[in-house]
Formats: sequence, C-alpha cells, structure tokens
Amino acid sequence: VTALGPGGEFDRLRGVFRRLADAGTLGDDCALVTVGGVALAIACDMTVEGRHFRRDWLRAGELGWRAAAAALSDLAAVAATPRGVLAAVALPASLPPAFLEDLMEGVAGAARAAGAELWGGDLTADDRIVMDVTVIGSADRPVRRAGARPGDTVWVTGRFGGPRAAVAAWEAGGQPDPATRARFARPVPRITEATWLRDQGATAMIDVSDGLAGDAGHLAAASGVALTLAADAVPRHAGARGWEDAVQGGEEYELLVTLPAAFAAPPAWLTRVGTVAEGAGVTWTLDGRPVSVGGGYSHF
Amino acid sequence: VTALGPGGEFDRLRGVFRRLADAGTLGDDCALVTVGGVALAIACDMTVEGRHFRRDWLRAGELGWRAAAAALSDLAAVAATPRGVLAAVALPASLPPAFLEDLMEGVAGAARAAGAELWGGDLTADDRIVMDVTVIGSADRPVRRAGARPGDTVWVTGRFGGPRAAVAAWEAGGQPDPATRARFARPVPRITEATWLRDQGATAMIDVSDGLAGDAGHLAAASGVALTLAADAVPRHAGARGWEDAVQGGEEYELLVTLPAAFAAPPAWLTRVGTVAEGAGVTWTLDGRPVSVGGGYSHF
Repeated sequence: VTALGPGGEFDRLRGVFRRLADAGTLGDDCALVTVGGVALAIACDMTVEGRHFRRDWLRAGELGWRAAAAALSDLAAVAATPRGVLAAVALPASLPPAFLEDLMEGVAGAARAAGAELWGGDLTADDRIVMDVTVIGSADRPVRRAGARPGDTVWVTGRFGGPRAAVAAWEAGGQPDPATRARFARPVPRITEATWLRDQGATAMIDVSDGLAGDAGHLAAASGVALTLAADAVPRHAGARGWEDAVQGGEEYELLVTLPAAFAAPPAWLTRVGTVAEGAGVTWTLDGRPVSVGGGYSHF
Repeated sequence: VTALGPGGEFDRLRGVFRRLADAGTLGDDCALVTVGGVALAIACDMTVEGRHFRRDWLRAGELGWRAAAAALSDLAAVAATPRGVLAAVALPASLPPAFLEDLMEGVAGAARAAGAELWGGDLTADDRIVMDVTVIGSADRPVRRAGARPGDTVWVTGRFGGPRAAVAAWEAGGQPDPATRARFARPVPRITEATWLRDQGATAMIDVSDGLAGDAGHLAAASGVALTLAADAVPRHAGARGWEDAVQGGEEYELLVTLPAAFAAPPAWLTRVGTVAEGAGVTWTLDGRPVSVGGGYSHF
C-alpha cells in the first residue's frame, strides 16, 4: 500500500487498506500489475453530476471527453502508454439518444487523442448523470509516487488555476472566458510529457486532480520526504485569480514530478517549483516566506 | 460490433455503435483485446441505489460482493479467468467509515472467491450509493455470444427465479426466505463451470443479467440463429413463484450456453432447455405450445 497525504477522503481509504491486508496495489494513481508477463497500469475515475460538474456547464461531448481525460491522466501519472478505455454511464431516460451518442463520442475522442481505443462500457438509467471511466495501459517502466529523494528538484507541467476559476465563474452565475472554460471542459492528459519525464530520470510523479497542495502531500507521504514549494513559482493560467487558484484548485490534470538535481534543461511546458529534503510534509512559500495553504477539495 | 437483441437500452447502444465506427470490441459481455500479446477480457458493471437495490435490502458487505459478482459474471460469460477487480464507489459522507470498509471487504471477497485480486478503485461522495466494478481476466480461448449453429442444443446452469422473487418480497414490504434472499445478496459467478463448458465445445455463451428472455435474444441476434426454448424446462429456484420469475427475472448470473448436438453428459448443474435452428429471434414454449414472454427489465 502506498502512503497517502492528509484529508477525510484519505482517512476513509486508510481504513479500507487496513482491513484488506493483501491490498498490495492500492493507494497509487494506478494499479500496477502483471498479467501473463505483461505489465499493465489500470485506473478508474468516477464523475457525478452535481458533485464534479453541473449539466448546464458542459455539452455532452465535453462531459465524455473530460471524464475520459481525468482517468487517462492517472495513466500519465505513472508514465504508462494508454491502450484502452471502458466507460460505465448512468443517465436519465428523459435525455434524447443523441446525448449518449455525443457523450460516448467525447470519451472515444479523448481516448484516441491519447493513443487508446474505446473498448467497452455499461449503460444504466438514473435521475442524474454518473460516469466511471476505466483506463488500461502498458507500463513497462512506471514512475511511482514513491521515489523522490532529498536533493531532487520539483517541477510542474503547464499552467494552473484555470479549472478553479472556471467553476467560480459558473457558480457566480456567469460564464468563464473561452480559454478558461476550455481548461475545465477539455483537459489534455500529459501522456507524451510523462514518458519524456520518465526518460529524464523522474524519481516520483503524480497527476494533479485534487489540487497541487493535496497531491504534493500524497507524493511527500509516499516518498517519505519533505517538499518545499514556492506558491509564486507555480505558473498561472491567464484566467486564474491568484496563487490560491493555482495551488488549491483541483482537476488540473497536470503533472507534479521530481527530477534529479542534475536535470537542468526543462522544455517550455515544465517549471521548477521547489526542492526535496529529508523530513515529512509540504511547506509552501510566498516571496520566500512560509505561507499557510489549505488542502485540496475533500468530498468527506 | 456484436448484434444485440430488442429493448430500449439496446436501441440506445445501437445508436452509440453506429456513431463510433471503429468500436470493434463493443456489444459483447466483455471487451476481448490483446495487450503486449496477452489476450484479456475486460468488463464493467454499474450498480445504482434505488435502481438495482435499496439500501435496507442489503448489508454493506453484501452490496460489495454482489456488485463484484455481477461484473465477474461477465468474465464467466466468455470463459475468461478472472485476475483483478477495480471498484469505483460513490457514497454518502454521512455513512460511517466502517460501511465503506465492509463494502470493499465484500468486493475483495467476491474477487478472491473467483481467483482474482482487488487491484484498485476510486472513492467519491454522493447522496446515494453508486458502484462501478471493472474486472480484468485472461482469455486465451474465449467463448462469444456469436457462434451458435443450427442443430446445437441450448442449456442453462443453475436454477432461476430466486432474485426476482426476493425483490418482489421486499417490494411487498416483507422479507424473502433466507435461501431466496441469498440468491439476490450473494450470487456466485459461474467461473469454473464456464471453462468446463468451453472445454466441452460450447459454441456460444452469455450470462443472464437482464433475464433469460432478454439475454437469449442477445445470443440469438449475435449468432444469427433462432432459438426455441421451453419455459417449463428452466429449473426453478425453490423461492420462484412460477415460470415467469425464472424466464423474465434478471440478475441471475447463471449461464445460457449452446453446445454441439453430440454433447450428452451434463453434470447436475446443467439443464437442457432448447434447440438452435436457422432463422432469427427466440420462441418460448409451455407444454410444447408457443407462449408469449415479455422481455427482461429495461432501464429505458
């Protein structure tokens, strides 16, 4: 079992792991298993209307794309190569048949964009939309959450805060600007960047789904190290309202990665945000001084 | 794409299959795919509180067992060997942590009983319980829904009608007797029976989740044949109230299988219920005369 950071959701999972003594693959972004000599990475990600999105925020195709991209991002987190996607869908019988077709076209589109195929699914009726997307990839040389070493440097892909700003705009009764909306509606999992980072010697990696603060806590706990991260070093999406959006916002589907100290030639999409030391937990700084940062969103 | 039988749910799926022209693996009980030279069977099955069960019908451990068994039954349908299970769970934050632990212990128990491990999952909060269980198996020699030939004989495993009778007792405000309740609460997927049937030369197979009538329609459509089935030949569970419970009731997780005409040595758990001929669709008989049978439960 991989150690998790703080939070009510993770307290519940710790309880499950304690009870299931043989649950060796639990706690990472993906299950990393071997079947018939082939190394596989498998993950699932559930999306519930009214919890993760509201129906009037997204078109059906975007809903499908987003649900699949969220699950595919778990494969990116371990530098796996996506192979296939299954989508279980519950939706109201009152929706027209084209809604499901558009939704599944979105799932298939996100799968194709990541090099995977739509392999199957399940359909049931409910009064709200619920999706669970399962992704399967090959993972000959996975990168885990555990593996960061004192002296490593900490990096992030992309720009943060867009999805949280988009949700804030909708919740205030308005509309996010198109670029900010797109960060929520059509996230692109960092599949190719992940394998590049692995080939640069990445020591630990996680995808940012619960928010940078919370996910940094998971990486620190799994690796048994302390992270010091500069909130003002995290690149911000143009729509982000401040560093809190970038550090606390979830559903970014960017990568947080640790690399050896010798790594010094980052591409444009990769930004250094901190360092790894002996110890435990995450310290955030602003203008070089420690600052208190709340955790990511917790469902519990 | 494998052809499906009649029903509103399957009309919706046909619409999805039409739109996704490359959706080659869709329409069977499982996706049958090859990754790194290894043949895999993968399926998912979603269970929604208020649709598939009510919370006061089942203990948490039974709910987990049942959700996993339903998905594992899809692996039995293709004679795959279960290897791993992932469970995505949404549940109310008001439930005590032990509820989730019991539920996941049920999932892990059904997995172990089928020779598989609990590999992973996902957790989110919702105001009702939703579970989606994904199962992965190895499938070197799968049996498909397509493959029944005129002249084959049609057989079922086990005894039918228990789950429908249990639900009827609960919905009438009572309690099913313990044996009938157990048929609903702790179904046992026919994993070992499935591989035995494959080794006897099974030509087509499906697991009975939507009801024998509906699932026989899928097998007939996929194989491009006509089935004639005797409603009074279907073995009934002691709790079943009549042949309708046995033929129309869903969530049996028994197998419907076609075998070559030469097959003549059934074990005690296997019963001959009909024949395969050229043509299309399913004809049911009672006392040797055709009888009209409604389809299985449709969510749409």
